[in-house]
Amino acid sequence: MQSIEHYRSEFISYLESKTETKEPKNLYEPINYILGLGGKRLRPILVLMATEIFGTDYKKGLDAALAIEIFHNFSLVHDDIMDDAPLRRGKATVHEKWNINTGILSGDAMLINAYQLFENYKEETFRNLAKLFSKTALEVCEGQQYDVDFETRDDVTQQEYLKMIEYKTAVLVAAALKMGGIVANASLEDQNSVYEFGKNLGIAFQLQDDYLDAFGDPKTFGKQVGGDIIENKKTFLYLKAFEMGTPLQRKELADLFSIQPKDPADKIKTIKTIFVESGAAALTQKEIAIYTEKAFLILRTLKISNDKKDLLHQFGENLMRRKV
Amino acid sequence: MQSIEHYRSEFISYLESKTETKEPKNLYEPINYILGLGGKRLRPILVLMATEIFGTDYKKGLDAALAIEIFHNFSLVHDDIMDDAPLRRGKATVHEKWNINTGILSGDAMLINAYQLFENYKEETFRNLAKLFSKTALEVCEGQQYDVDFETRDDVTQQEYLKMIEYKTAVLVAAALKMGGIVANASLEDQNSVYEFGKNLGIAFQLQDDYLDAFGDPKTFGKQVGGDIIENKKTFLYLKAFEMGTPLQRKELADLFSIQPKDPADKIKTIKTIFVESGAAALTQKEIAIYTEKAFLILRTLKISNDKKDLLHQFGENLMRRKV
Repeated sequence: MQSIEHYRSEFISYLESKTETKEPKNLYEPINYILGLGGKRLRPILVLMATEIFGTDYKKGLDAALAIEIFHNFSLVHDDIMDDAPLRRGKATVHEKWNINTGILSGDAMLINAYQLFENYKEETFRNLAKLFSKTALEVCEGQQYDVDFETRDDVTQQEYLKMIEYKTAVLVAAALKMGGIVANASLEDQNSVYEFGKNLGIAFQLQDDYLDAFGDPKTFGKQVGGDIIENKKTFLYLKAFEMGTPLQRKELADLFSIQPKDPADKIKTIKTIFVESGAAALTQKEIAIYTEKAFLILRTLKISNDKKDLLHQFGENLMRRKV
Repeated sequence: MQSIEHYRSEFISYLESKTETKEPKNLYEPINYILGLGGKRLRPILVLMATEIFGTDYKKGLDAALAIEIFHNFSLVHDDIMDDAPLRRGKATVHEKWNINTGILSGDAMLINAYQLFENYKEETFRNLAKLFSKTALEVCEGQQYDVDFETRDDVTQQEYLKMIEYKTAVLVAAALKMGGIVANASLEDQNSVYEFGKNLGIAFQLQDDYLDAFGDPKTFGKQVGGDIIENKKTFLYLKAFEMGTPLQRKELADLFSIQPKDPADKIKTIKTIFVESGAAALTQKEIAIYTEKAFLILRTLKISNDKKDLLHQFGENLMRRKV
C-alpha cells in the first residue's frame, strides 16, 4: 500500500500527462484551467486507494479516478454559475474568467469526457463503472436541485436535509470507493460495504462542514467562518436550533435569517449563541459522531486484511480532523 | 418495414409511457416539458428505421431512439440559454419559463438520462452505443463552440464552416442511423456506411437550411425567412458570396452585415441580390446536390435488400424536399 501523498502525486502526474489543449481552444482551455486549480483531490485518491485495497495495482484505477475528478469539477463549474460565485480555490471561476456560455458548454464537455475515460476498461467493468457513474451523477444533480429548492422553503425537515447532503456530497465519495472495487473486481458485498462506508463518512464530513462554518478555527477552516450565517443558509445547525429552540430563540433566528447586515459580526455572534444554547451545536456534533462511527463499523465488515482496513480508517480519521 | 408515420407514433407512445414527474419536481418537470413540445422526431425515427433495416425488430431500438431524442433536446435547452432564445417550437424556452439555473441543471440531468437508457442493452451493445454517443455528443459541443467562435471571426473558411455544421448537426443524424445498426448487430462495414450516409445527408440538410433561410417560401419554411440575414449570421451563402463577389459586392456585404436596421426588408433584398449575382446561391445549391448525391451513392453500398435501400432513399428525398 502507498501513502495518501503518493496517490495524490501519482494522480496529479496522470492528470498532467492527459492535459493537452485540443481544438476548439475556447472549449478545452477552461477545462484545463479548472482541473489545474488544484484542490485536495480526495475523490480520485479514494478510487486509487480502493483499487489497491481490493488487490489490484492502483494504476489500473487512474482512468476511473480521473473521471471522478473531472465530474466533480464539472459540477463545480455549473454550480458556480448557479451560485453566481466569483471565486473557486481563490481564483476566478470559469464563468467569471470567460463567460456563462463558456461555463455551460465546457462543463457539458467535461461530463462527456468523464464517461469516455471508462472506455479504457473492458466491457463488464466499463458497464459497471458507467452505470454507477450515471446513477451517482444524477443524484448529485438532484441534491443540487434540493439545495436550490430549500433556499425558498421554511419547512425543510432534518430528514430532507440529510438526504440533500447525501446526494449532493456523500454519494460521490461513496462512488469513488466503489469504483476502485469495480476496477479491482471485488465481491459485490465488499463493493456495497465500501460504498456505505464512503456514504456515511461523506455525510459526517458535510455535517462537520456545516458545524465548522460556524464554530471552526478561522486559521485552519479554509473558508470564511460564519459564511453560511451571513448568507442565511439553512444548514443542519439552523434546522436543529429552530426545532429545539424556545419560541424566543426561534423568533430571533427567523428575524436574523431574514436580514443581511453590512457588518455581520453581531449577527454571527447572536446566532452562534442560539446554536449553542438551543442544544443544536451539541446535537450536530453528536450526529457527526454517529455517522463517523457508522462508517467505521461498516469498514470492519470488509473482507480485507486489517492493515488495509487501518488505511481506510486512518483516511477517515484524518478527513474528520481535516488533515488530509 | 413500417412507414415513417408509424415509427413516429410508436416513438411518441414510448416517450409518453416513460414520462413521469419524479422528485425533485423542479428538476424533472422542465425535462418533460421540453420533450413534450413536439418536433419532427427525425433522429429517433432514424434509429428505429435503421434497427429494422438491419434485420431486428424496431422495438429493440426504442431506448437508443429515446436517448438520441433526449440528447438532442438537452442540446436545445443549453443552446437556447447561450443564444438567449425566448421561443422553441413556438413555446417558451426552459430558461424563459423557469430560469437559467433550471435550464442548466435540468439539461445536465438529461445528458445523464440519455446514457442511462443504454443500460437496457447487453454489455457489448451498451459499450458500443455509449462510445458512439460520447464521441458524437462531444463533437456536437465542439460544433457549438465553433459556431460561437465564428460569430466574432472574419476569416472563416468554407472548410471550417462545413466542419462546424458537420459537428453541430450532421454527426447526430449519422449516429442515430449507426445506433440502429449497433442494436441490430449489423456488420461494422454497414454501420460505417449508414453513418456516412447520414453524415452527408445531414450536411446537405443544413446547407439547405442556410439556403432556404434566404430563398425559402415563407409559407412552408417554418422559420422567419431572412432570419440569418437579420442576425448577420455568416452562413455558407455569406461565405461564398464574400469569396466570389466583386470588391463592391464584398464591401456592401460587409457594411450590411455590420448593421441591424429596424426595418430589415431593404437589407434582406440587397443581400439576396448579392447572393444571386455573386454566384453564391447557385453554388450553394450545387453543394447541396453534391452532398445529397454522395449520401445516395454510399447508400447503394449497403449490404441490404433494395426495398430497404429505397426506404432510406425515400426518407432522404423527403427530408431534402422538407416533407418528412
